[in-house]
Amino acid sequence: MTDRVPAAHPAWLPDSATAVLADALLDATGPLAATVATELAAARTRFGAPLTADPAAARVLLLTLDRARALTAVPGVAAAVTAAADLPAEGWSRSREEQQTVVVGRDDRGLLYGMFALLRNPGAATGVVTSSPRHHLRMLDHWDNMVAHPTMGAVERGYAGESLFFRDGQVRSDLARVEAYARLLASVGINRVAINNVNVHRTETDLLRGHLRGVVRIAEILRRWGIRLHLSVNFAAPVVLGDLETADPCAEAVAAWWRDRAAEIYARIPDFGGFVVKADSEGQPGPFGYGRDHADGANMLARALAPHGGLVHWRAFVYDHRQDWRDRSTDRARAAYDHFAPLDGRFEPNVVLQVKHGPIDFQVREPVSPVIAALPRTRLAVELQITQEYTGQQQHVCWLGDAWAQVLRFPLADDERTSVGDLADGGIVAVSNVGTDAFWTGHPLAQANLFTEAALAWDHTTDPRAVLQEWASATFVSPRVAETVVDLMVDSWQTYEAYTAPLGVGFMVRPGHHYGPDVDGYEYTPWGTYHFADRDGIGVDRTVSTGTGFTGQYPEPWASRWESLAECPDALLLFFHHVPYHHRLHSGSTVIQHIYDTHFAGVERVRSMVAEWAALEGAVEPAVFDRVARRLAEQHRSAVEWRDQLCSYFWRKSGVADERGRTIHP
Amino acid sequence: MTDRVPAAHPAWLPDSATAVLADALLDATGPLAATVATELAAARTRFGAPLTADPAAARVLLLTLDRARALTAVPGVAAAVTAAADLPAEGWSRSREEQQTVVVGRDDRGLLYGMFALLRNPGAATGVVTSSPRHHLRMLDHWDNMVAHPTMGAVERGYAGESLFFRDGQVRSDLARVEAYARLLASVGINRVAINNVNVHRTETDLLRGHLRGVVRIAEILRRWGIRLHLSVNFAAPVVLGDLETADPCAEAVAAWWRDRAAEIYARIPDFGGFVVKADSEGQPGPFGYGRDHADGANMLARALAPHGGLVHWRAFVYDHRQDWRDRSTDRARAAYDHFAPLDGRFEPNVVLQVKHGPIDFQVREPVSPVIAALPRTRLAVELQITQEYTGQQQHVCWLGDAWAQVLRFPLADDERTSVGDLADGGIVAVSNVGTDAFWTGHPLAQANLFTEAALAWDHTTDPRAVLQEWASATFVSPRVAETVVDLMVDSWQTYEAYTAPLGVGFMVRPGHHYGPDVDGYEYTPWGTYHFADRDGIGVDRTVSTGTGFTGQYPEPWASRWESLAECPDALLLFFHHVPYHHRLHSGSTVIQHIYDTHFAGVERVRSMVAEWAALEGAVEPAVFDRVARRLAEQHRSAVEWRDQLCSYFWRKSGVADERGRTIHP
Repeated sequence: MTDRVPAAHPAWLPDSATAVLADALLDATGPLAATVATELAAARTRFGAPLTADPAAARVLLLTLDRARALTAVPGVAAAVTAAADLPAEGWSRSREEQQTVVVGRDDRGLLYGMFALLRNPGAATGVVTSSPRHHLRMLDHWDNMVAHPTMGAVERGYAGESLFFRDGQVRSDLARVEAYARLLASVGINRVAINNVNVHRTETDLLRGHLRGVVRIAEILRRWGIRLHLSVNFAAPVVLGDLETADPCAEAVAAWWRDRAAEIYARIPDFGGFVVKADSEGQPGPFGYGRDHADGANMLARALAPHGGLVHWRAFVYDHRQDWRDRSTDRARAAYDHFAPLDGRFEPNVVLQVKHGPIDFQVREPVSPVIAALPRTRLAVELQITQEYTGQQQHVCWLGDAWAQVLRFPLADDERTSVGDLADGGIVAVSNVGTDAFWTGHPLAQANLFTEAALAWDHTTDPRAVLQEWASATFVSPRVAETVVDLMVDSWQTYEAYTAPLGVGFMVRPGHHYGPDVDGYEYTPWGTYHFADRDGIGVDRTVSTGTGFTGQYPEPWASRWESLAECPDALLLFFHHVPYHHRLHSGSTVIQHIYDTHFAGVERVRSMVAEWAALEGAVEPAVFDRVARRLAEQHRSAVEWRDQLCSYFWRKSGVADERGRTIHP
Repeated sequence: MTDRVPAAHPAWLPDSATAVLADALLDATGPLAATVATELAAARTRFGAPLTADPAAARVLLLTLDRARALTAVPGVAAAVTAAADLPAEGWSRSREEQQTVVVGRDDRGLLYGMFALLRNPGAATGVVTSSPRHHLRMLDHWDNMVAHPTMGAVERGYAGESLFFRDGQVRSDLARVEAYARLLASVGINRVAINNVNVHRTETDLLRGHLRGVVRIAEILRRWGIRLHLSVNFAAPVVLGDLETADPCAEAVAAWWRDRAAEIYARIPDFGGFVVKADSEGQPGPFGYGRDHADGANMLARALAPHGGLVHWRAFVYDHRQDWRDRSTDRARAAYDHFAPLDGRFEPNVVLQVKHGPIDFQVREPVSPVIAALPRTRLAVELQITQEYTGQQQHVCWLGDAWAQVLRFPLADDERTSVGDLADGGIVAVSNVGTDAFWTGHPLAQANLFTEAALAWDHTTDPRAVLQEWASATFVSPRVAETVVDLMVDSWQTYEAYTAPLGVGFMVRPGHHYGPDVDGYEYTPWGTYHFADRDGIGVDRTVSTGTGFTGQYPEPWASRWESLAECPDALLLFFHHVPYHHRLHSGSTVIQHIYDTHFAGVERVRSMVAEWAALEGAVEPAVFDRVARRLAEQHRSAVEWRDQLCSYFWRKSGVADERGRTIHP
């Protein structure tokens, strides 16, 4: 058997888009200049365009700012230099006229990004534009296993084939797809990648040492595309690898062990990014096992990395996953805040606390996590999930741009001007949705989620719908197709929400794999994810006055607003309140009628999506058309199943008939 | 890594029991005489007793009838010969006086069983007794896989370690435990074993040919203990093994292929038992795939085996496992009857239709399967499940003797004198609960289920509680311990029923693994196992008048009795009827109060079992004590979980409070 990974779909970088580079001139410094040169060479090979050596005559000029300053005699260059002068690192400017396009990178990385921005939109309008990242840490986490896990497979919560990096317990021998992947990520500005699952099993623990040669090979590829490699580490690695009897973060031998590992890694990967740690969470080891707290644990690792410029991404996803469902006072939503807020100010500067955007776990609708505003003296990254664990697993179209933008723009901090995105001074991290699948993401349209997340990580104030439009135009080229695709996708998150768990209550998925409906699937489990539906009502009372007190973790006005049944928005109602089925929503509907109506409407919308796509037959590459058509059929089947199960469940329980008399199965 | 399987607990044959053989004399014909001789030699080695050559003086005489007839001068022999004269094959008689015990086997197998009967009860009373089997086909099915299945493991529904027969895709090199197991089975009269899972995956399909050498090795061991080996086969084997394009049972090439396989097998295993087939069931291939029916399929295989004396065990477990839960007219309970009753009279004489005892799937309480009375012209075996798939998975004590006896004694046929056991003219088959576990069965007390099932397969009219008593006395030797164990176990099936699914409704288990409660776990699935609980009531209407018509598949008086809400027994109420929660049972309680009461009572009973066992500390071998104590603790935890989930679920749904005001979590 060969290790060879087949070539993949070009995603938003079809070969045709690179034509614009064929008669481009490059003058740049920095290591990534060579990467830009490779792109130009490939375009010239492909399109055979003549090469001019005269900057004034070139159709496209690609320059780093230092070199551009010597060329300001060319008018376009002058304009671009002026625009680029005050940009931060990684930024770029572009001056475009009829005859010439000039891209100036603030540095070589900025130039790379500026070049790809042109590829993504070769027909961009004339004039001067700039772009620079609001977040310098734009990271993807891969939940890839080296050895396929018995239940989770090669990629935990992966729906796009096998791992690009690993196979059969080894780093792959053929890394050609990693190179293509790195290029894809660079084209949207991702600059850090953690290559292995945060649940670090035995084999993966040895990435630190036994498999380091393979890690070096991956790092060398990523480096060419401006991407730093991170590793998820097992907090108990000194024990798991058999070197020490303890992993106590306050034991000097443990600290020395980690210093040795860091030194070994940096000797071979000078730009190594650092460690990602899931500690004391869902069975992973951590400092609690030694009577230490999470600042002790994170800081010990941080001190090992600090001399080399590395970071510790310490995940705040810590909760009791063996909760007693009978105990209504324990609230998983509270856990991260309760654990971490008291530690503010104690973390080393190179610790980044990595916080899931919501208090539970990537549900289709959650309030933002109160942890994000709770540690002003701590670097904090917001974690998003591109892989569609709870949002249809890349069988369903569910474009998450609106959801993420809503989170990142949310004015969480006290002064109402500081959004979640602003508070994420440690950057934006997202769980990748990519694997060896020929379309990268299983569902071809799920590429849009990767593209959109990266754009929001670059600048969370970006209009996500404009990003979707850009992605569709780059990917499908044909304006008619792009328009249909955007129309089909733009409200797909809202549609997914409509036919799944209602009003912010979350879960109701099949346990374990999390696909498809099971209203009571998690209701009597230790996972802390309940809806408490009885014959009279539904929802989780998380108020301070009568519930778990979770609303009190928020700054004002949110604490009061969500505490109040009258002010709480419909979309989050059941997250914060337990209400009777006949409770009247702001929308004017009752809770029970809302459940019926949204589920029927959601299915109708999926039906129209199926039809929209079907109309594109012949206009879209057959392989893409077929894959999407098959998955839309599955989405429709699944949406009907969600609708029917949810409606039957709540009819059986509430006894309230549908006002509109539609078919609900008894 | 070694393939060696560690030695196991002696179960009901402790070494001490073999003392009775130390000065026994053997005079017997037939191949199994050598096996009896080996037992005697082992006892002599162990106990060093003197050997007399004088039959009149021997404390124990072990004789086959043909030899015994020459020794009737010895009074005990004369009595035993007289008693044995009219016995069927495999029977034995025993004449016991103070000074001498004479065991006469009708044949060598009868002698082997008579010898073991003495070992199981060395202190048996004086006098003459006989024993002979009511069923000549007493078979165990192993659901063992050669390659551990990703979700089902080495033994499907196995809770006792790995397979005794297979490892890593091969027949084990070390078969010492198979020898010990065969002896254990012979000691309770099992005479046929199917060694592999009825779900026949790729590797196991090749047991027929590629792995035949290993099968021969197993067969040679089983043969020494009077046991014939059967194989579960894949109906599509000719295709799966790459020989033919079709497995159509009416294609001559297919029939010839199976004839060749049978000839090859019998050339090497002259006493090969035959094939077990799960066809067109839960994804297994079958004749439906070729537009043929199950008589076509079974007969084709039967004709291949007939010249060699082999049997086809054709399972009647055929139903639509992709049922639509919305469709209340389809009833899985009906399926086997609907498929097979019309085929009566069409099967070859060496086809045995193997029917699960209930219409669904080994639930803790089901009515007997109507199929058992529906095919008078067909040989029919009743299938029981010793492995505790739905009855606590050998974590819970659940002695099934009462349950099986109730099934086998059930007067199903029209004349009310013909019980299920009588109708099983093709014998009794049971799914084994044994693996490489040191105690054979995971839970040491689960050995009693193996022992009891074998006793009922020998004679289904046997009092199961006497069998339990015999097992306990043989296993624990100490009368006080045996008494406590019997007390702890005797009502454990009723206890398990009390704290799990009520009133015959079944399931309510966690999907997939089937352990622990999940009331709605299968409610909206394609598996056809529903309870239809809503806010008003619960149960499945299987009546002819208003339901699925399933009651109509039974002969009278059962069809009428179960059709009638007034006459249907409480234990089966929800299997046959959908009733309101306030429906009054024959017991005087309401359905909802019955649910509360039985669940609280069940937990209380488990609590007393824990205490009873704890009192045996020091009186039981520590390894056994600890294993049972740990599992009883888990049983208690699990019973509390069942109680609390069931009570909360039905309180939330019905809104009816517990009359006794006990704690039910909201």
